[in-house]
Amino acid sequence: MSRGLRGVAKVCAPFLFMAGAVLTPNWRASAGQTNGARVSERPAPRAPVWDDRERIIELSERRARVAEFVGPKSLLVLLSGEPRVYAGDVDYKFRQENNLFYLTHLNQPGVMLVLMPGHTKHREVLLLPRRSPAAEVWTGRTYSPEEARAISGVGEIWEAGEFEPFMRATRQGRAFKPRAESILLSANTAPVVSGSPTGNETLLTAIAQDAASLFLLLPSETESREFRREQELAGRLVQTDTGLTVRSAWPVFTRLRQVKSAAEVRLIQHAVDITAESLARAAAIAGRASLEYEVEAEIDYTFRRLGAEGWGYPSIVGCGPNATTLHYTDASGACAPGELMLLDVGAEFGHYSADVTRTLPVSGRFTPAQADIYNAVLAAQEAALRAAKPGATLADVHNAAADSMRDSLLRLGLVTERNSTQYGIWFMHGTSHWLGLNVHDVGQMGRKLEPGMVFTIEPGLYFRADALERLAKRPEMSKFVEAVRPAFEKYKNIGVRIEDDVVITADGHRNLSAAIPRTLNEVESLMNRVKH
Amino acid sequence: MSRGLRGVAKVCAPFLFMAGAVLTPNWRASAGQTNGARVSERPAPRAPVWDDRERIIELSERRARVAEFVGPKSLLVLLSGEPRVYAGDVDYKFRQENNLFYLTHLNQPGVMLVLMPGHTKHREVLLLPRRSPAAEVWTGRTYSPEEARAISGVGEIWEAGEFEPFMRATRQGRAFKPRAESILLSANTAPVVSGSPTGNETLLTAIAQDAASLFLLLPSETESREFRREQELAGRLVQTDTGLTVRSAWPVFTRLRQVKSAAEVRLIQHAVDITAESLARAAAIAGRASLEYEVEAEIDYTFRRLGAEGWGYPSIVGCGPNATTLHYTDASGACAPGELMLLDVGAEFGHYSADVTRTLPVSGRFTPAQADIYNAVLAAQEAALRAAKPGATLADVHNAAADSMRDSLLRLGLVTERNSTQYGIWFMHGTSHWLGLNVHDVGQMGRKLEPGMVFTIEPGLYFRADALERLAKRPEMSKFVEAVRPAFEKYKNIGVRIEDDVVITADGHRNLSAAIPRTLNEVESLMNRVKH
Repeated sequence: MSRGLRGVAKVCAPFLFMAGAVLTPNWRASAGQTNGARVSERPAPRAPVWDDRERIIELSERRARVAEFVGPKSLLVLLSGEPRVYAGDVDYKFRQENNLFYLTHLNQPGVMLVLMPGHTKHREVLLLPRRSPAAEVWTGRTYSPEEARAISGVGEIWEAGEFEPFMRATRQGRAFKPRAESILLSANTAPVVSGSPTGNETLLTAIAQDAASLFLLLPSETESREFRREQELAGRLVQTDTGLTVRSAWPVFTRLRQVKSAAEVRLIQHAVDITAESLARAAAIAGRASLEYEVEAEIDYTFRRLGAEGWGYPSIVGCGPNATTLHYTDASGACAPGELMLLDVGAEFGHYSADVTRTLPVSGRFTPAQADIYNAVLAAQEAALRAAKPGATLADVHNAAADSMRDSLLRLGLVTERNSTQYGIWFMHGTSHWLGLNVHDVGQMGRKLEPGMVFTIEPGLYFRADALERLAKRPEMSKFVEAVRPAFEKYKNIGVRIEDDVVITADGHRNLSAAIPRTLNEVESLMNRVKH
Repeated sequence: MSRGLRGVAKVCAPFLFMAGAVLTPNWRASAGQTNGARVSERPAPRAPVWDDRERIIELSERRARVAEFVGPKSLLVLLSGEPRVYAGDVDYKFRQENNLFYLTHLNQPGVMLVLMPGHTKHREVLLLPRRSPAAEVWTGRTYSPEEARAISGVGEIWEAGEFEPFMRATRQGRAFKPRAESILLSANTAPVVSGSPTGNETLLTAIAQDAASLFLLLPSETESREFRREQELAGRLVQTDTGLTVRSAWPVFTRLRQVKSAAEVRLIQHAVDITAESLARAAAIAGRASLEYEVEAEIDYTFRRLGAEGWGYPSIVGCGPNATTLHYTDASGACAPGELMLLDVGAEFGHYSADVTRTLPVSGRFTPAQADIYNAVLAAQEAALRAAKPGATLADVHNAAADSMRDSLLRLGLVTERNSTQYGIWFMHGTSHWLGLNVHDVGQMGRKLEPGMVFTIEPGLYFRADALERLAKRPEMSKFVEAVRPAFEKYKNIGVRIEDDVVITADGHRNLSAAIPRTLNEVESLMNRVKH
C-alpha cells in the first residue's frame, strides 16, 4: 500500500542553494522540526554500508546459481563493458556491464570472468589487465589482484593476456594451463592430481562429444552497439569446427536479477532517497527557473553531490507542452507561470537506478483543468498500487490503472466508449517496468510477482497539441475526434505522469518513494511551503 | 601576453550556493564594485549570439573550402555521430560528429551531408530522416526540412532513405535521381537540362575513367570505436569493382579547423567564461568539501546551469596525491586541509570546449614546499606564454616551458643536470594542444602559429609517491635517485598544473582565461576572500 506524507519541514539554510527558504527533503524525519532550524547538510540519509564479508558471500551465491544453470559441461564468459567515445580521444564516464558487475562488483574496463562449473580446481577465474605504472600516471590506479579478490571474492586471478590462448585451447578441445607468471593469485595451491593436468576433463570430454556449450551475453540484434566482442567471439566459434555450442547467457541473468536481495533493495532505496532530495530542490527552484535546464542542472547536481554516480537515465524535465513528450531530454525550453513541470528523474547509486516522476505546478497551484488530469492519473496510480502484490502480474497492475483511466476519461469527455482501447490514445505507454541495474531492468513480463521484485508504477496522460489533427487523418476516427474535441481543447498541452518505485513484500508491496509528496494537496502544499 | 587580474569582488549573495560570502567570477567587471553589492545571478556574461545570416554565410564558406579540396571529380560524405549505449536501452546524451557539425550546425542523429563539387545542380545535399509523429511522442521533435535548411543553409534536402540507393548508383557509376516524394526541399527547381539527367556527369565520367574519389572520415585504427559506418562504407567499396577510390577527409578538416573564425573564438571564450565561474564556485567551497566529488558536482552544475552542454571532457578534481595523476577522473578521494586541489575543467558551449587548470591550496595558503613547485610551474607557463606568437610553433612554446623547468628543477635539487631530459621525469606531458570542437582538437603540430589558432598552455610538475621507487629499478638511474632523494622527500605527493587557453593574434596572443586568478598571490588572495 502506498504510504502518505509523514512530515515536511521548511528551513532557512544559508548553505542551501537559491532561495533563503529551501525545503529539506528529509520527509521521513518525524514531525515537529521547527521552521528555521538548521538541518543536516544531507537530508538524504547516509549511504547504506554493505559489509565486505556479506557482500562476498552474496556474490559467491550469485555465481553459484549461474554455475548451476550453466552446468558442468559448459563454460560462461563475461566481458567488461567497453568505454564509449564522446568525441575524439575523450570517452564518456565508464560504466561497467551489468551482469559482470552483478557477479563481481568490479568496476573497471578489461576485466573478464570465466565460470567453469565442471572444473575440479578453478570453477571461477577472473582475468585482470596487468597494472602499468606508466599508464597509472595518466589515468590513475587500477585494481591489484588482491583488491580484485577482496571486492569480488574470486580466488583465482590470471593476467588478461591468458584469455585468448585459453579460449583458443578450449575451442579446440585442448587442455590449457596458464603460464606460471600469468597466475596473479591462485585459489588452489594443491599439487596437480596425477592424470588430471587441467582439471577440466568434464568440459573437454563434453567438447569431444559435441555436448558442451559456451554461454555468452549475445546481443539481441546482429547490428548491436554493445556486446560486439561477445558477438565476435561467437562468430569465431562458428567458423571453427568445435564441439562447443554458443548459447545465450541472458535467461539465467534475467531470472536471477528479477528478484532483488535485501542488499539490492537497500541500494535502490538509497538511489530513491537521493532522487527525493533532488526533487525537493527542483520544487524549491521551479518557480524561479526560467529555463528547463536550470532545474535539470539542480537535479543532476544533487545526484552527484550526494555521491550517486549520476543519473540512471538522462533526466526528463519538461515544462508546459514539453511535458507531453514521454522521453523529452532536451531541457532547452522555457518554463512559464501556470504551466506544469514534469520531472522524470532517477539517481544511480551503487549501479542501481531510481526512477521517479512528479508533475509540479510551476506557480504552486494546479488550474482546474490541470487538477482534473492530475487526479485522473493519481486515481489510476492508486488502483495500480492496490494491485501490486504477490501472485499478481504486471499485466494485472496495468489493467488496474487502465480501468481507472477508462472511468476518468469517459467522465472528462476524452473517450466516447469506456470499454475500448480509446484510453490508449491519451495513455500510450505501459504502467510498469522492472527496476534495478538497468532503469528498464531485465525480467520476464508474465512472471507472477514475488517478494523482492522491484518495479515502477507510472500511469500518465498526455494531450499533445497536434493529437487530434493526427487522428483526424484516419477516416474511421472522425466521429471520435468531433466528440472529444471540446474536452481536448480544455486539456490541450497538459502532460501528467506520476511514478513511484515499489518492492513486492510478503503481504503486498512497499513504496520506496512514498515519502515524496504525491497527492494534489501534498504537491501544492510542498510548492507553497518552499516558494519564494 | 598574459593579462593579470583586473578586479575581484566579494559579495554576499543569498541566492548563491554555500557560503554566505561567495565570489563573483565576473572578474572582467571594472574595479570599484563594493563588497556586499548584489551581483547579477549570472556572473558569466550572456551567451554570444550568432546572427542567423552570418552563421549561414560562414557555414557556406566552410563547405565551399571543403568542396575546393575535394574537387569536381569526387564526392564527400559525412554521417551523423551514433548515439552511444550507457546501459540497456539508455543512451548517453547524444553528441554530434564534429565535422558534420562544423559544416551544418545540425545536432541530431541520422543526418548525412553529401558534397558533390562537380554537380551542376546539387553541389551539396543534406539527407534527413523523415519525421515520425509516433516517435516524436516519445523522444521529442526532430528537424523539419525547413528548420534544417534554416540552420545549415543547405538548400537541397532528401529523405535519408535515398542514401543507400544514391551510394549504390554512384559506386556503380550510374546516374541517380531521387524519388520525387523523397525530395523534401529543393534548391533548384529549374527544369533538368536536356541530355543532362543527373547533373553529375563530371563525377560519373571520372568514375568511368577510374579517376574519382570518395572522401570519408576514416578511423585511424581498424578496430575503431567510432566512424564504424564510414569504415563499412569504405569496405563495401573495396569489395566492388568501381572507379571510386576511398580517401580520407581528415586532411582538409584538420587544416580548416586549426584556424578559428571570430565566431568560433567567441564561442570558446564563452565556454571559458562559464568555466571561470565554475572555478570560482569551486574555490568558494574547496575549504568545506570533504570529498572531491562534491567539488566536481559544483563544477558540472555550474556548466549546466549556465547553459553549457556539460563538460568538454570529464572534470579532473584531485586532492593531495590524486593531483599527481594527470587524467584523474574518479573524484572519490578525500580533501584534507594543507593539501592542494588540482582542478582541470572545461565547459562545452555550442560544441566548443574550454580547458583550464588551476591548483588551489585547500586551506587558503600554500606551504613553502607547495609554493616552490607552484612558482616553478608558473614561471614555465610565463615563458611559454611569451613564446606564443605568430610564426612560432607549439614546439617553440614547449621548449620555452621546458627551459624554464630545467632552471627551476636544478635550483630545487630535483634534477642533477640542467641540459638533459631529466626534467621530463617530473614534467612528463606536452605543454600545449589545439582546442576547439575537440578538447584535443585537430591540427598539424608543426604548423607555424597564425592568428585564430587556439591552444592550451599547461605546464605541470608531479611528484608521485612511488616515482623514485620506480626509477630505482633501472640501474642507470641509481645515482640520480640518490642525488634527488632529499628534494623529492620534500615535494612528495605534490602535483601542480596551471593551464590557460590562448588565441594567436596579429601581434602575439590573447589569453582567453586571463581573468581567472593565476599567480600564487592572486590564488591565495582569492581563497582568502571567499573562505568561510
